[in-house]
Amino acid sequence: MSQMKMKNNSFNDIKEKINSSEKICLIAHVNPDGDSIGSLLGLGLALKKDKDKVVKIALNDELPKNFKFLPGTEYLESTKEEESFDLLITLDCSDLNRLGKGKYIANNADYIINIDHHISNDYFGDMNIVFPNFSSTGEIVFTLAEAIDLDIDKNIATCLYVAISTDTGSFKYDSTSPDTFRVASELLKKEINLNEITRNVYQSRSLERTNLLIKSLNSMELYENNRLAMASVTRDMIDDCNASIQDIDGTIDFIRDIDGVEVACILKEYGQEEIKVGFRSKSDVDVANVAEKFGGGGHRKASGCTIYDKIDKAREMILEEIKKALR
Amino acid sequence: MSQMKMKNNSFNDIKEKINSSEKICLIAHVNPDGDSIGSLLGLGLALKKDKDKVVKIALNDELPKNFKFLPGTEYLESTKEEESFDLLITLDCSDLNRLGKGKYIANNADYIINIDHHISNDYFGDMNIVFPNFSSTGEIVFTLAEAIDLDIDKNIATCLYVAISTDTGSFKYDSTSPDTFRVASELLKKEINLNEITRNVYQSRSLERTNLLIKSLNSMELYENNRLAMASVTRDMIDDCNASIQDIDGTIDFIRDIDGVEVACILKEYGQEEIKVGFRSKSDVDVANVAEKFGGGGHRKASGCTIYDKIDKAREMILEEIKKALR
Repeated sequence: MSQMKMKNNSFNDIKEKINSSEKICLIAHVNPDGDSIGSLLGLGLALKKDKDKVVKIALNDELPKNFKFLPGTEYLESTKEEESFDLLITLDCSDLNRLGKGKYIANNADYIINIDHHISNDYFGDMNIVFPNFSSTGEIVFTLAEAIDLDIDKNIATCLYVAISTDTGSFKYDSTSPDTFRVASELLKKEINLNEITRNVYQSRSLERTNLLIKSLNSMELYENNRLAMASVTRDMIDDCNASIQDIDGTIDFIRDIDGVEVACILKEYGQEEIKVGFRSKSDVDVANVAEKFGGGGHRKASGCTIYDKIDKAREMILEEIKKALR
Repeated sequence: MSQMKMKNNSFNDIKEKINSSEKICLIAHVNPDGDSIGSLLGLGLALKKDKDKVVKIALNDELPKNFKFLPGTEYLESTKEEESFDLLITLDCSDLNRLGKGKYIANNADYIINIDHHISNDYFGDMNIVFPNFSSTGEIVFTLAEAIDLDIDKNIATCLYVAISTDTGSFKYDSTSPDTFRVASELLKKEINLNEITRNVYQSRSLERTNLLIKSLNSMELYENNRLAMASVTRDMIDDCNASIQDIDGTIDFIRDIDGVEVACILKEYGQEEIKVGFRSKSDVDVANVAEKFGGGGHRKASGCTIYDKIDKAREMILEEIKKALR
């Protein structure tokens, strides 16, 4: 990719392009999370205020239950192969593959604006707003909306707040900047309901997920003077709890948060001989290195790999490699 | 109490009083939490910059492990009966009894400034700064420091940030205001280490506490179509985990956060026939009412009582009353 292409456009470029487009589609990445849903709905609702435009807010996946309370979810619709748009705005997508089965919509669009905060973004848009030092795409959307004078009402503010809050772990991750807090302050001034947001986003863990978490924790074992914690989740455990594989999410963070634990690891039995392994590090141990030994990858503090073997065998192999890394 | 007494002083009054005092003691409430420790150290470090004053930062309890990383903890010292001060500044204390065994220090002080955000504060100070609509005492201290031109360096900012973050549940509670975020933004500009704060405050649950939580969760039972969740913690469970009674804190919030649960309840075996019961409500059920039936009390959404009977008997009695409340 040429240096040329890795350049951001000005907010004013974006404003002019939006103003001159009549049929706009907004889309975010597959397996939606708070930031993708929140920034999608936030910008979507803001653009929908211009009644002279057709604005479609696309979602091809199921909306996670925690986000069903968000304003504007009634506008979410799946895309159709034959549809075409003057302008496609992608949110929180580092590359076009992140659109999943909605990727064809990019081929049918006359023009693409790419708004994202992932450092791995490949600037696939005709115009790009990629700010890797922003906490979240939601924070970028707010900053853009402020700069191009989009009206941010209470509903839009709620969506953008959820985007920022979820992508910063409720302002705990160090992606949180002074500007992130400035934006949160502005959003709160729109009289959003923080109680409702907290209850829905953070206090509504399903019973199935809770039971699976308890079961996983019962399987937890500690090694190397409690510097390593490992848990396994089998298909049987998932079935017993009437849970789904997604319900394992979050368990690894719970284990990482134990005092003294430097590396947390979870083994997830996707199939009888397909074990997905997640790693978290709280110390100098580079878990991307460990994952790479099994053909996986990731970041120093969060990584993953897949092992095509039985779960007990996978556990053994992983254990050995992490022990080496901890020495 | 007369209306007269329930008045706040101006920041300027506080400034003048501090400037004219030579021997100052700062103290916060017993069973220290993040807000009491953070605002105590934050203001203490700020006042210590004036080398013409003797400034003592008093702590009569043990410092919780999570807060040992805070700057200034090396200055914490317990008070002595015979000491006297020109000025005592109390932080995060709603009344003088909250000083616990340090209460005598108030009797020996020539003058008291009371800085707090609890709505129940009884304005016991000679001067008072009581702002119940502030998220935390830490937020008040920042606002005061800003107004009276105290120099807020990185160390002080770290302490005040921890005060605000912990008292708002990391900005999740609706005590968080636009101003809270403005203050958080200003504190972050002092280049505090958010990673270090998050790791120490939120990602360092002790292994003993973790094991006790797992055991408690295994004891959890659901009633009334999963609208009520109850767990018990016995002395044996605490001993098995090498944990202490304080390690039960937080378990009830974990249970409350299950989707569909309206009332969460935990029974803690303090003694063989001394059961402390905690209640949380996420719905219209007023748990203060339930607690009052057993001689306890609290708020609509958080309350407690003590039952002097065996834990199984206590569980039965409580269950019956909550079921009534849920109907």
